[in-house]
Amino acid sequence: MPMQPIKFYYDVLNQSSRALYILLEASKIPFEPVQISLLKGEHLTGEYRDKVTRFKRIPAINDHGFQLSESVAIFRHLVREKIVPEHWYPRKNLGRSRIDEYLEWRQRNLGVASTDYFQQKWLVPYLQKTRANENSVNGAAKQLERNLNDFENLFLQSNKFIIGDTISYADLLAICEVDQPKYIGYNPFIKRNKLSKWYDAVREELGPFYKDVSGEFESKLRTAEKGHNEVISMKQ
Amino acid sequence: MPMQPIKFYYDVLNQSSRALYILLEASKIPFEPVQISLLKGEHLTGEYRDKVTRFKRIPAINDHGFQLSESVAIFRHLVREKIVPEHWYPRKNLGRSRIDEYLEWRQRNLGVASTDYFQQKWLVPYLQKTRANENSVNGAAKQLERNLNDFENLFLQSNKFIIGDTISYADLLAICEVDQPKYIGYNPFIKRNKLSKWYDAVREELGPFYKDVSGEFESKLRTAEKGHNEVISMKQ
Repeated sequence: MPMQPIKFYYDVLNQSSRALYILLEASKIPFEPVQISLLKGEHLTGEYRDKVTRFKRIPAINDHGFQLSESVAIFRHLVREKIVPEHWYPRKNLGRSRIDEYLEWRQRNLGVASTDYFQQKWLVPYLQKTRANENSVNGAAKQLERNLNDFENLFLQSNKFIIGDTISYADLLAICEVDQPKYIGYNPFIKRNKLSKWYDAVREELGPFYKDVSGEFESKLRTAEKGHNEVISMKQ
Repeated sequence: MPMQPIKFYYDVLNQSSRALYILLEASKIPFEPVQISLLKGEHLTGEYRDKVTRFKRIPAINDHGFQLSESVAIFRHLVREKIVPEHWYPRKNLGRSRIDEYLEWRQRNLGVASTDYFQQKWLVPYLQKTRANENSVNGAAKQLERNLNDFENLFLQSNKFIIGDTISYADLLAICEVDQPKYIGYNPFIKRNKLSKWYDAVREELGPFYKDVSGEFESKLRTAEKGHNEVISMKQ
């Protein structure tokens, strides 16, 4: 039986979707990408909600009838069930334990902060057809500051990448997380030299896989912003 | 070389500490328990902060010089490096993927809600030697309601346990999470028959391991409350 592709439901506006997209491409795992538009609320309704995932979230996969949500659970599923190059989740020197430590930490910290900032500054105003609420953005920015500092202090002290000399899934997910505020005008690198150096190293290592997906992210942002600005200016 | 025990740093007041303690005992993994008192702030200072974990959190382990934080990362480490009975994280029927899905979900949902409720209702008043702030407790209670409903609707629909007929680490962590509000007077079972049935099944399956650790949790809570009530009544 020939290997059937995984169905991969995603939106490049979402950081975890971008990370998994890059992992699937870089690992040469056959997959069928299915775009689910966050801006149109397609993750909340219709066939996606009824037949793909009860979680009303992206990303999700359907692997030959097996439906799975939660991006890090999908990452682990791919590692077990498909062929993913070892360096993304290396056994050597207990690398997997170190990566797991980061993946848990980020769920409560950098992941929350980058999502909140993106929502307050960009997504909520877009969906509500208003300007961003300054207080909410400032609150989210403060939380983001703290989390970027913690990320740099806890994970980027001595090595080129998070767990050592080679790039892993921790770096891939982290750069997509940092990009969430970065691509909408926030500069994460001020007074953070180690973060800046790490970011460049990850971007270089990921090469065209990262460049393509980030380009798509950027283009989708700019198109939506254009429409949004027109709506706002008509209101005035 | 005889197998040296893992050093396990924990406090029974913390849900993830209890879950790992029970897993270590039930799996017969040799370990040396080291109590770190949350109420005395021992996780924030001294040798623990300087030499055990830079995260200032419990639980943590030291496995022959390898230090690791984040309870779910520790769980995964034990599964890989020690002998943990298969049913806690079964390969069969893609059980590991289903458990991973729950473990990711809980980090943003039930885990946050049960911790927040415990903090607002119990821990913050204890540390600040005041009464609980009613508004904060009500806010945390509403968040908890939503999350318990979601937990029941998303994960407890058809099976005895979260992933099927056998207990897994998802159930163990979840019961410890539900206990966090339950042991300080919150009734999670009102209008939640499936949650109630699941809770009884998990408790029965865990037997004395659960009973012992929960008894210690309860006794520590009641002792601290006694001291707290004396402080409060002296203030009046």
